[in-house]
Amino acid sequence: MADWIAGPFATSVLGDFGAEVVRIDLPGTVANTRVLHGLEPADPERSPFFATFAHGKKSITLDVRTSEGRSLLLQLVAKSHVLVEAFRPGTLEAWGLGWDELEKANPALVLLRISGYGQTGPWSQRPGFDRVAQAFAGVTSVTGYPDQPPVRPGVGVADYGAGLWGIAGVLLALFDMKNTGEPRGQVIDQSLYEAVLPMLCEAPVRFKRHGEVVERYGNQVRGVAPGGLFETADGRWMQISGSGDVAWAGLTRAMERPDLLVDERFITNVRRDENSELLMPIVADWTRGKTVEELDQLLLSEGVPAAVVQNIEDLMTHPHVIDREDFVYIEDPIFGSLPAYNVQPRLNRTPGHIGGPGPRLGEHNREIYQELLGLSEADLEVLRTAGAI
Amino acid sequence: MADWIAGPFATSVLGDFGAEVVRIDLPGTVANTRVLHGLEPADPERSPFFATFAHGKKSITLDVRTSEGRSLLLQLVAKSHVLVEAFRPGTLEAWGLGWDELEKANPALVLLRISGYGQTGPWSQRPGFDRVAQAFAGVTSVTGYPDQPPVRPGVGVADYGAGLWGIAGVLLALFDMKNTGEPRGQVIDQSLYEAVLPMLCEAPVRFKRHGEVVERYGNQVRGVAPGGLFETADGRWMQISGSGDVAWAGLTRAMERPDLLVDERFITNVRRDENSELLMPIVADWTRGKTVEELDQLLLSEGVPAAVVQNIEDLMTHPHVIDREDFVYIEDPIFGSLPAYNVQPRLNRTPGHIGGPGPRLGEHNREIYQELLGLSEADLEVLRTAGAI
Repeated sequence: MADWIAGPFATSVLGDFGAEVVRIDLPGTVANTRVLHGLEPADPERSPFFATFAHGKKSITLDVRTSEGRSLLLQLVAKSHVLVEAFRPGTLEAWGLGWDELEKANPALVLLRISGYGQTGPWSQRPGFDRVAQAFAGVTSVTGYPDQPPVRPGVGVADYGAGLWGIAGVLLALFDMKNTGEPRGQVIDQSLYEAVLPMLCEAPVRFKRHGEVVERYGNQVRGVAPGGLFETADGRWMQISGSGDVAWAGLTRAMERPDLLVDERFITNVRRDENSELLMPIVADWTRGKTVEELDQLLLSEGVPAAVVQNIEDLMTHPHVIDREDFVYIEDPIFGSLPAYNVQPRLNRTPGHIGGPGPRLGEHNREIYQELLGLSEADLEVLRTAGAI
Repeated sequence: MADWIAGPFATSVLGDFGAEVVRIDLPGTVANTRVLHGLEPADPERSPFFATFAHGKKSITLDVRTSEGRSLLLQLVAKSHVLVEAFRPGTLEAWGLGWDELEKANPALVLLRISGYGQTGPWSQRPGFDRVAQAFAGVTSVTGYPDQPPVRPGVGVADYGAGLWGIAGVLLALFDMKNTGEPRGQVIDQSLYEAVLPMLCEAPVRFKRHGEVVERYGNQVRGVAPGGLFETADGRWMQISGSGDVAWAGLTRAMERPDLLVDERFITNVRRDENSELLMPIVADWTRGKTVEELDQLLLSEGVPAAVVQNIEDLMTHPHVIDREDFVYIEDPIFGSLPAYNVQPRLNRTPGHIGGPGPRLGEHNREIYQELLGLSEADLEVLRTAGAI
C-alpha cells in the first residue's frame, strides 16, 4: 500500500529474494508511481519509473476506505507476512486499520510504515518528499560549492535510504520470529529524513565537541587533500583521491613530480590539507594536459583511486558494468526490452532473481481474491459495484 | 575486518540489534577509521568518526598475515555467525583465508565482502573510495547545476548504501538458515558503486527507450514544477515541492495568487514544467519577500511540502529531532558526552539499543582470546611476541 519510491523499491528487493509482492492500487485511479516522471503514450498505467521497480509484482485494486475493502484488507493481512504502507501518519488509524486492528487479524504481521517525518513528533503530520527530507536532514546543506547556494544530491538518497532501512527492518522482524519461534510481529516506523542522518558521519560529534558546523566543500572532502574533481584535456571531470600517503606517493609518480613527494608543505595529509589551495591547482594543471584515457592509465598503474564522472550512457556501456551484469533486461509487453537493476545484495547461494514485467492495474484481482481469499465471481461483482475493488 | 565506513557502519547497526561485534585491528598500527578526519589530541586511537560507529563493539588485535594469526582467525570464524571484510578482492585468498578455508572452518558462516567494484570483473582490482564510486556510478554526473561542473553529493552515499545493502545481505543469509534449518552460510559480494545504482531511478529505462541521458538539474527535479530551493527574506534556502496538483493549489493560496491557479500556462504539472522558466521566478520573488518562519507557517497551513535547508546545528536543536530522540548521548571515557545516531530502523517490539563507547585498541584481547578461545596467558605472550596479536 505504498506509492512513490521507498515502498515500491523496498518491496521490489524483497520480491527479488522470493517474497510474493502484491501491489494494492486504488480502483479507478492511476497511482503516482504508475505515472511518475511522465506518462508514456503507449500505456497510461506504466511509466518508466513504474517499470523500474514493479517487476515480478502482482496488482490488485482495493479501496480500503469502503467497509468491504477494509474487510478484504484484513483478510489479506491474515494471509500475509508483511504489510508496507506510506500514508500520512494516522491515516490507517482513521480508516480503522491501525496496528491494533491489523495485529488482531494477524499477530505475526510485520508492518513497515514509511513517512516523511516518522509516526510521532511535532512534525509527523507534515507532508514530506525526498528532497524536503534531504533539506531537513542536513544533507542538502553540505552539498554544493562553498561560494554558491546548496544543491540537492541528484539522486533520491532519502527515498532509497528509507527503502533500504525498511528492508533491514522487515528482515530483522522476520528473523526475530524465526529465531524465537514466537509468531509475534511488530511495527517499523521508518522516516525519510532519519534514513539519511547517519550519512552525516561524524558531524554531530564535531558539533557537540567543537561547536563546528560542517559546511559544503564542493568536490573536496574536509581535512583530506589532494582530492576532488579535476578537469581533463578532453573536457571531462576525473575524481581523484590522492590524499592518503600511499595514494599521494603514487600520484606524484604519475605526475612525474618526485619533488612534490619530498616537499615539506605536502609531506603529510595534514600538511597537504593545510596547503591545499596551493596543491590543488598543481594537480589541476597536470590533469588539464591529459586525456581521460591517459590519466586513467597513469593513475591506475600507480594505484591512485580515480574514476571519470560517468553519465548513464557511460555507465551502461562500461565493460565492468556489462561484465557484472548490473543491468538485466525484462521483456515488457508494451515497451519491449527494458533494463532493470540486477538483484542486490549479491548472495552466492540464494541469489534471488528478477521477475517478469510489472503488472497492469488489477491484473491479479482474480488470482488473489478468488484463489487466495476464496471469493466467488458473484462476490467480485458485488465488490466492483460497491467500488471496493 | 573492515576499516573505513561501510563495514563499521553495517556492523554498528547489527550490534545495535544484539550482535556481539568484535572489531579486528592490526597490532601496532592505528587503523584509518580510528584516525579518520583528524586525530584528536586527547587520544590517538579515537577520532570523532571512530566514536560515531564504534559504540558497543569489542576490539582485538590480530594480524592474520602471520600463521598464528591466520589460525586464530579460523578459530574465531568457527565461533562466529558473520565475518565482514573490506580488503581489495583477492586479499583474503592470498592470505589463505578465501571462502573455501573459511567455509571449512564454519559452514554456516556468512561472509560479507565489501569492495569498490565487487569481487569480479575487469575493474575489481581497482582501489575505490566512496567519491570515486559515486563518480563511476553516475551519481556525481546528475548532482549540481546544469551550467556548472558536477559536484559530489556531500555525504557518503556509496559507503552508507553499501553498508545498508550489506546489512540486508547478512540478514537474508541468516534468515535463510533459520528458515530452512540448514546451517549453510554464503558469501555476499557488495560493491560501493553498485550500492547506489538503483538511486538512478528510471534513468536506465529512459536511456534504453529514448536514448535520453539524464543530466543534472540543480535543485529542480526533471519534469516537475515548481520545486526546488528558494531564497528567503532572511537569506536562507527553502525547499518547496509545489508540483503536484494539490500542492500547487495550496501554493497559490499561500501566495495569495488565485490567478495562477487558473492560468492556462500552469494548469497541469506538464504545463507548469513546460513553463517553469516563467513560473520559478514568480515563486522565487514571493519567497524573497518572506522570512523562513512566515513561509513555513503559510506553506504548512496550505499543505505544501517544504523545509528550510538545515545545517547540523539546526538539525540537532530542532524540536522534532529532539522529540524523536534522533541523537542519544554516550559517555566516552576520553571525550565525555558524545552524540550517536539512535537505533534505526525503529522496531516497536525489538527496538535494539546503543551500547557503550567504542573500545580501545585490543581492549578485549583477554576476553576474546582467553574466555572465548580458551588460550592461556602464556599463549597470549607467545602470540604477542610473534606479532600475531
